[in-house]
Amino acid sequence: MSTKEIELFFDVGSPYSYLAATRIEALGARVGRPVRWRPFLLGGVFKATGNTMPAAVAAKARYMMADLARWAASYDVPLRFPSRFPLNTLRTQRALVAAGRSSGPEAIGPFALALFHAYWADDRDVSSDEVIADVAAACGLDGAAILAEAGDPACKEELKRITDEAIERGAFGAPSIFDGDDLYFGNDRLGLLEERLRA
Amino acid sequence: MSTKEIELFFDVGSPYSYLAATRIEALGARVGRPVRWRPFLLGGVFKATGNTMPAAVAAKARYMMADLARWAASYDVPLRFPSRFPLNTLRTQRALVAAGRSSGPEAIGPFALALFHAYWADDRDVSSDEVIADVAAACGLDGAAILAEAGDPACKEELKRITDEAIERGAFGAPSIFDGDDLYFGNDRLGLLEERLRA
Repeated sequence: MSTKEIELFFDVGSPYSYLAATRIEALGARVGRPVRWRPFLLGGVFKATGNTMPAAVAAKARYMMADLARWAASYDVPLRFPSRFPLNTLRTQRALVAAGRSSGPEAIGPFALALFHAYWADDRDVSSDEVIADVAAACGLDGAAILAEAGDPACKEELKRITDEAIERGAFGAPSIFDGDDLYFGNDRLGLLEERLRA
Repeated sequence: MSTKEIELFFDVGSPYSYLAATRIEALGARVGRPVRWRPFLLGGVFKATGNTMPAAVAAKARYMMADLARWAASYDVPLRFPSRFPLNTLRTQRALVAAGRSSGPEAIGPFALALFHAYWADDRDVSSDEVIADVAAACGLDGAAILAEAGDPACKEELKRITDEAIERGAFGAPSIFDGDDLYFGNDRLGLLEERLRA
C-alpha cells in the first residue's frame, strides 16, 4: 500500500457508501491522491463489532430518508430508496473483488459506481447474477468471467480478508475511508478528510 | 414558535452538542435567523427511542476520540475529553431551564456555552451545584436563585416537556436542530442546514 492512497472501504448495499462513492474520485483529484476502491462486506463488519445499521432504530430510520434526500440534492445525484433493502450483497461484493482479480484494481471503481447507480438510482436487484453480469457488460467487463471468478474459493477468501483487515484497522461501518492509519467514517466526513489532506 | 427560528435541542453531556453549540449563533447570524436554545435530557431521548450513545460500540468509541479532536481543530475550539463521562446531566439541564424561567430565554445560550466550556474544555463537574452556581455567576446570573428554581417541580416538569416534545418531533439523539418541522441531527449536519437556509 502506498501511503499516498485514499482507501475507500464500501458496500453497494450502504446508502452513505453510495454518496461517498460519487465524490471520492473528484476529492482525490483535488488533493492529488489516487483512490483505492476496497469492496468489503458490511454485514461482516456489523457482526464483528456489535454495531447495527442506523435503520435499526425507528426514529433514525425515518430521519435517514430525509437525510439521504438532502445529501443527494446537495450532491446533485439521483437517489431512489430501493424496494429491496437491506440487500444481501455477498454476491455483489464478491463480484467486485472478482473484477479486481480478473481485470486489475482499476476496474473496481467504475464497476462499483455502476452497481451503486443500478441499486440506488434504478432500484435494480444488484445481488442477482443477471443484473451483475448486465452491469459488468455495460462497464466493458466480461460478466460471465466475473461471476465464475466470484464463485472461486480464492475470491471468497479475498473478500473475507479485506473485511477482516478493515475491522482490524478500526472500521465499524460503511463507508470507511483511510488516509494511512487514519479512519474517516461516513460520507459526512469527506469534508474533514479533504481539509486534512490540504493541510 | 416563530417559523423563522432555528431550534437547537442540546445536552451539555453530549460532545457533538458542544461542537454545534460553538457554531450555531454564527450560522444563525449568517442566514438571518435567531437561535432558540432548548435544553433537553439526552438520556430520556435514548430511553424513549431505543437509541444508544455512540460510545456503546467499542470501535466507535475509539474512533469518536479522533473524530472529536478533528472537529475541534477544524472549528478552532478547545476540547479535552472529560474525566467524568458519561455524566448525569439532569441537574445541569434543569439549571438551564431554570435560567430561562428566571432570567428569560435569552439567558440560556450564554449560560449553555459557559457550561459546555466548563465540561468540554476545563473538565469541571457541571453536574455539581457548586460548579453550576459558579458558572452562572460568571455569566452574570444569580446561581443560588437558579439552583432553587432548578429544584422546583414546575421546572423539572418543563425539562421533561421539552424532552418529550423533541421525541414527538422525531429526535433520537443530540444535538437535534429543527428548521420548523425539519430535523437536522448532529453537528455534522450544520453544513446541510446552512445550505438549505440559504436556498
